[in-house]
Amino acid sequence: MNILIKNALVIPMTQRNYSYKGDLFIQDGVFVDGTDFHADKIIDAEGMIALPSLVNAHTHTPMELMRNYKDTAPNLMAWLSEIFPLEDKLVDNDIYWASKLAIAEMIQSGCTTFSDMYFMQENTIRAAQESGVRGVIGLTLFGDEEETKKRIAIFEKFLPRYQDEEKISFMVAPHAIYTTTIGSYQTAHDWIVKNPQIKGMHTHMSETMTEVNDCLKSHNTTPLCYLKDNGVLEGIKVVLAHGVHLTEEEMKICNDYGISVAHNPSSNCKLASGIAPLSQLRKAGINLALGTDGSSSNNNQDMFEEMHVAALLSTVSTMDPMANTPYDILSMATIGGARAVGLGSKIGTIEEGKDADCILINTKTPHLTPLNDPFSALVFAAQGSDVDTVLCKGEILMEKRRLTTIDVNEVMEQTNACWEDLKKR
Amino acid sequence: MNILIKNALVIPMTQRNYSYKGDLFIQDGVFVDGTDFHADKIIDAEGMIALPSLVNAHTHTPMELMRNYKDTAPNLMAWLSEIFPLEDKLVDNDIYWASKLAIAEMIQSGCTTFSDMYFMQENTIRAAQESGVRGVIGLTLFGDEEETKKRIAIFEKFLPRYQDEEKISFMVAPHAIYTTTIGSYQTAHDWIVKNPQIKGMHTHMSETMTEVNDCLKSHNTTPLCYLKDNGVLEGIKVVLAHGVHLTEEEMKICNDYGISVAHNPSSNCKLASGIAPLSQLRKAGINLALGTDGSSSNNNQDMFEEMHVAALLSTVSTMDPMANTPYDILSMATIGGARAVGLGSKIGTIEEGKDADCILINTKTPHLTPLNDPFSALVFAAQGSDVDTVLCKGEILMEKRRLTTIDVNEVMEQTNACWEDLKKR
Repeated sequence: MNILIKNALVIPMTQRNYSYKGDLFIQDGVFVDGTDFHADKIIDAEGMIALPSLVNAHTHTPMELMRNYKDTAPNLMAWLSEIFPLEDKLVDNDIYWASKLAIAEMIQSGCTTFSDMYFMQENTIRAAQESGVRGVIGLTLFGDEEETKKRIAIFEKFLPRYQDEEKISFMVAPHAIYTTTIGSYQTAHDWIVKNPQIKGMHTHMSETMTEVNDCLKSHNTTPLCYLKDNGVLEGIKVVLAHGVHLTEEEMKICNDYGISVAHNPSSNCKLASGIAPLSQLRKAGINLALGTDGSSSNNNQDMFEEMHVAALLSTVSTMDPMANTPYDILSMATIGGARAVGLGSKIGTIEEGKDADCILINTKTPHLTPLNDPFSALVFAAQGSDVDTVLCKGEILMEKRRLTTIDVNEVMEQTNACWEDLKKR
Repeated sequence: MNILIKNALVIPMTQRNYSYKGDLFIQDGVFVDGTDFHADKIIDAEGMIALPSLVNAHTHTPMELMRNYKDTAPNLMAWLSEIFPLEDKLVDNDIYWASKLAIAEMIQSGCTTFSDMYFMQENTIRAAQESGVRGVIGLTLFGDEEETKKRIAIFEKFLPRYQDEEKISFMVAPHAIYTTTIGSYQTAHDWIVKNPQIKGMHTHMSETMTEVNDCLKSHNTTPLCYLKDNGVLEGIKVVLAHGVHLTEEEMKICNDYGISVAHNPSSNCKLASGIAPLSQLRKAGINLALGTDGSSSNNNQDMFEEMHVAALLSTVSTMDPMANTPYDILSMATIGGARAVGLGSKIGTIEEGKDADCILINTKTPHLTPLNDPFSALVFAAQGSDVDTVLCKGEILMEKRRLTTIDVNEVMEQTNACWEDLKKR
């Protein structure tokens, strides 16, 4: 279907603080120049901002189930002791419905690409396929080399099935240095190098000072240096989730190796991990992305909220309102995220030849009046529910706030039923 | 009109973490016990949370006009140099429409009482009256005693007009110690003591370290001590906006004098003022309220967002997730705010005999599924747009997201027109 989006205030994210009033032409899922264009469908975007669809660069979609659950526990360990026994009892159906619920939430707040890290991934893949979004699926590793080899054997069985799925891609996701041995990281690294279907590595890194201090004690070096010293970073794409306590030396390593950092400001606050040094990371030249983390530590999948929190924390932690401007924050949530997950040439900006992943944000609402600077408006004043229309590769996934690919009542009912059942198991 | 709200999950805010499934009976604008109750209107609140309406304890409603305007200036002074010349040119019409726009925003995000500090107040009062919300109107003072006396003479002329307006009340609002002389504060104090129509004093306090350091230089003491030493706090109700840099000694003064602090976390981040020591303030026994500040430094009037930011900052700044629980944060936005603005016996909780200021929040939405802990849900996962229905003194101001007292398109059009005109003046 050829779609014409008319009269939008387009923020293409192709150059700093650039916007224009104009039309977008979408043919076979791709932005084209409009010459000899015949529209099958016309969307009137007067009063709306057109922005590249948002990219959620770090989440755990099935953790929707544990949203608002025991999350005022006094500390992380007390909370985990409530969560782990539940996770042990999860079945396919739980993962499928909870993933779909997370996807519904993400579409409703303007996100069409998510980078996930969880288990029983084929259920999440099915939810993503049926919903029409892009899933960057983490092949999660825990434990030692032996366990990792077992898991890789399982992954290798199902991976070929998704060879031709354009919207599904994969990263290997060793959970963290405190849950996964260095041998596992190395095995993962070698697998990535060999397997062209895998885009890179996605791992938790330097999320808490406890992690850093334990690493210093055990290995006499900081976490990212530990990976580097053991050859894990060589020749592969790496995304670090959190990176709250990266040292200057590690920031230099990120820059040298082209490593991206996925910033998770809400989760880092809520779990008392700290405030990541966003402006230092930026100054170090690192590609920055933004993620919500799982709903159990956020407690939602709203990237607009995440942009807002990121911007506020950046200013108050540096006392410099210019350290990360609204454009910088938007960039993290769009092209920065796209680059981090290996899709920078395909999505993340609105320009001819790129896939038509874009959203329309309704600005005719009291809290966006007057609009004035649209970049400030999106980061500081807008909310997820201002997203009116969502496209992914030219497919309309939401129009006038109605989801087209997901029966939202069914998903809520089924997820609630899974959760009630899980608590009784 | 007698209203029956059926099957709500009621969070009355009368005791910690208490909620119940039940009905609310509203007669002549007041919650009653339901005996011999005849309902003129029944609202089905199945799947909704009923909460006391939120109280925005510190804002500058007409600053809606400058929303998203030049707000990435490198510092406060550079920004003010853009704003002050505009403020000098404001006319009645600007104030009226911008106030009404702010009120529309506030109703849409669940707030029905706001404590304002601005100029040409009669326009804001008219907007509040027409909208059916409660306005706690700041009678703003700037400059020296002579200027203050002039202003008070003007205020005294229009105050009697609002003697019988139940939803309109007044506080005197000396702007800040760096813009208002101590003689003005003292004159304001004496006026409050004499005039029973005025509920107390509302002033900016210890917002930035610059303010504190300048006060130390000029007066050899910190800002609140300076007011105390000059008798300004004696025998009157006081609300301090911001209070980011209050000292331990000043916290003790707050407790001794029953002074409330209105916390403005978003604005304090955005203007690089700092993170207020919320848990210390709480431990000191101070009544805490929450405010959005003006939309030029927020950039909206959404108290749900404000609760969320307050909770995240509290945890990350203390590294203690229990320092301010979701219940504590909700309390600031409801009964804490009501007490701060002198309405604690009338609103802020849902209980028999109190005015029916309450809101219904729709929880049948993906980002509130599963609901689990409703306190966590409201503070961490909900957004302003989840508010479905809003009542103030039993009057329905919004139902199913439709405002009943404000023509929202007219207000947006008129405010935009005022703003375009203002920039040309």
